[in-house]
Amino acid sequence: MATKLAPACRSIALPAPLPLDSGQALDRVKIAYETYGELAADRGNAILVCHALTGDQHLASPHPITGKPGWWDRMVGPGKPIDTNRFHVICANVIGSCMGSTGPASLASDGKPYGMRFPVITIRDMVRAQIALLDALGIARLHAVVGGSMGGMQVLSLAANFPDRVERVLAIATTARHSAQNIAFHEVGRQAIMADPNWQAGDYYSTETSPDAGLAVARMAAHITYLSETGLTEKFGRRLQERDEKGFGFDADFQIESYLRYQGLTFTSRFDANSYLYITRAMDYFDLAEEHGGKLADAFAASRARFFLVSFDTDWLYPTAESRSVVHALNAAGAPVSFLELSAPFGHDSFLLDVPALDRVIRGFLEQ
Amino acid sequence: MATKLAPACRSIALPAPLPLDSGQALDRVKIAYETYGELAADRGNAILVCHALTGDQHLASPHPITGKPGWWDRMVGPGKPIDTNRFHVICANVIGSCMGSTGPASLASDGKPYGMRFPVITIRDMVRAQIALLDALGIARLHAVVGGSMGGMQVLSLAANFPDRVERVLAIATTARHSAQNIAFHEVGRQAIMADPNWQAGDYYSTETSPDAGLAVARMAAHITYLSETGLTEKFGRRLQERDEKGFGFDADFQIESYLRYQGLTFTSRFDANSYLYITRAMDYFDLAEEHGGKLADAFAASRARFFLVSFDTDWLYPTAESRSVVHALNAAGAPVSFLELSAPFGHDSFLLDVPALDRVIRGFLEQ
Repeated sequence: MATKLAPACRSIALPAPLPLDSGQALDRVKIAYETYGELAADRGNAILVCHALTGDQHLASPHPITGKPGWWDRMVGPGKPIDTNRFHVICANVIGSCMGSTGPASLASDGKPYGMRFPVITIRDMVRAQIALLDALGIARLHAVVGGSMGGMQVLSLAANFPDRVERVLAIATTARHSAQNIAFHEVGRQAIMADPNWQAGDYYSTETSPDAGLAVARMAAHITYLSETGLTEKFGRRLQERDEKGFGFDADFQIESYLRYQGLTFTSRFDANSYLYITRAMDYFDLAEEHGGKLADAFAASRARFFLVSFDTDWLYPTAESRSVVHALNAAGAPVSFLELSAPFGHDSFLLDVPALDRVIRGFLEQ
Repeated sequence: MATKLAPACRSIALPAPLPLDSGQALDRVKIAYETYGELAADRGNAILVCHALTGDQHLASPHPITGKPGWWDRMVGPGKPIDTNRFHVICANVIGSCMGSTGPASLASDGKPYGMRFPVITIRDMVRAQIALLDALGIARLHAVVGGSMGGMQVLSLAANFPDRVERVLAIATTARHSAQNIAFHEVGRQAIMADPNWQAGDYYSTETSPDAGLAVARMAAHITYLSETGLTEKFGRRLQERDEKGFGFDADFQIESYLRYQGLTFTSRFDANSYLYITRAMDYFDLAEEHGGKLADAFAASRARFFLVSFDTDWLYPTAESRSVVHALNAAGAPVSFLELSAPFGHDSFLLDVPALDRVIRGFLEQ
């Protein structure tokens, strides 16, 4: 298991315990992060990018385990839409994750991994950690905060809870609250992990095994929700995998089966099952209106930032209606907001893929 | 495990091996079935109802394990839309299932359960077994064949492959082929079962344990696809389960979590994991056009029946477009066909629930 805990290239130790929504506090917090581009002398050009559920700080540099390009390499770099010739781009691994920031695989004060002793965290707790990092880096005010999916939840939470810290807010393919269907899919994943005997109530770090089979099933179920039905039909349809006839067995006959199995399998080499439990829980707990007295507009009452919301027409995980409800709340709060539904065939994952219109939106909004 | 093999109230042994699409033949096939209402002297009032993936022959009489009313009790009975005062209604457990018809838990010729030695079957194989039952019962021609979901697949397959055996064809909430997304969800369920160490490559019938944990996860994932996003929001939303505050743990905080866990758990008491593998495989293999040279209209070239297709506007498992494509094929084949998209909030499961318009459609079509 230890190999899944990649050494963070850069990290800081927070000077004080991090207060959590649960009422607990997290001691000795480490935040692993990456930066791209120079910080201006006036510290006014910093952009925080928040990553999604299984993302990490390796935004525009190779992943240390898989060796693949950073997850937003197409978006972040010199001359790219988030232009590192102009901006200082920061991306931190969220707490609860497994890429160097403190999470369930980290050592507790007794020198043993937390496992399920790790406190349940929320999206707002993740944002508190992001703010603590900015404090440590001496960045009082962000030029912008940007993120898709769970990254977008952090973006909205940061804008709501730390309104003085950001000038531009760009939330992509996201929601202000997890729906019953969102929770249901996550619960399937959690039950798949917890049903794996190798999970051992989360106490598997010292053993030779880990709940990879359960984690792979969780990833497979989630992966379906990231893609559109149309996209799946176009990409795979009912095409067979390296055979001319159906095999009349339980091997992967169809390309879609083979693809999903591969997605499940490779995921387990880079992600910790307990982190999957904790981060999905944080997402399911997310309800920005509830945090602010039940009215979403009130969440943004103190904001002075400009907002941009982007949704994708084929995203059925966080459909356009979810972004619209945030836009309506921002309108009600009197905040300046733009909204665009982009057409792209890839479903929820569109924010990670080749959608040139998204590039233009992001570049334009950041340079306004 | 043996308790999951309910004694069939009525069954027949087929006199000859059943030929299968795989090229194999299934020996010593038993078909468990139920009937409701009297068969007319001219044998002209028989209606075959085909059940869905996890359904059974207990259409309108209590389930022998759960004690619950038959799965279509609201639709079938004296004076009900499928009126047993007029019609002789037959419902048989599909082969591959676990309610008395031959399936993977049945004993092979060596006296041991088939397990994964059971041949992979298709929807057409299930229909062959239905026809063999009709032969044994002396019913040459059905007044109608009716079914929803996988039952609808059998309905279409029977109409296509045995056109002389039926006068009216009523297919509800179904499709003529499984899409990549349909296959993907089933593959998640199969992988969940096969990842359960108690599955033991399907050879668990003589042990004290069975892959209930994996089967429960499979059921949970599938169950989400049976409900609509709107229905889930209306029924559960983000309401908490018997608590006022979030628990900051991994118990079922939300009602939707509790509901899904219950669905998974109770399912394992009445269904066999290997049957789930085989029946989902049969559904994934279903492509009625492919069976008939690639053109769906050709599947219905020999039909002289009247058709009625019904879809539900909130069904995202087999959406209306799937029914429409069948209707277009029937139009191209010159077959008389009616089509209705019904509005109901329950998603795919609408065909099992209280949708009065469906009652009227079914009654009207059968009595024409």
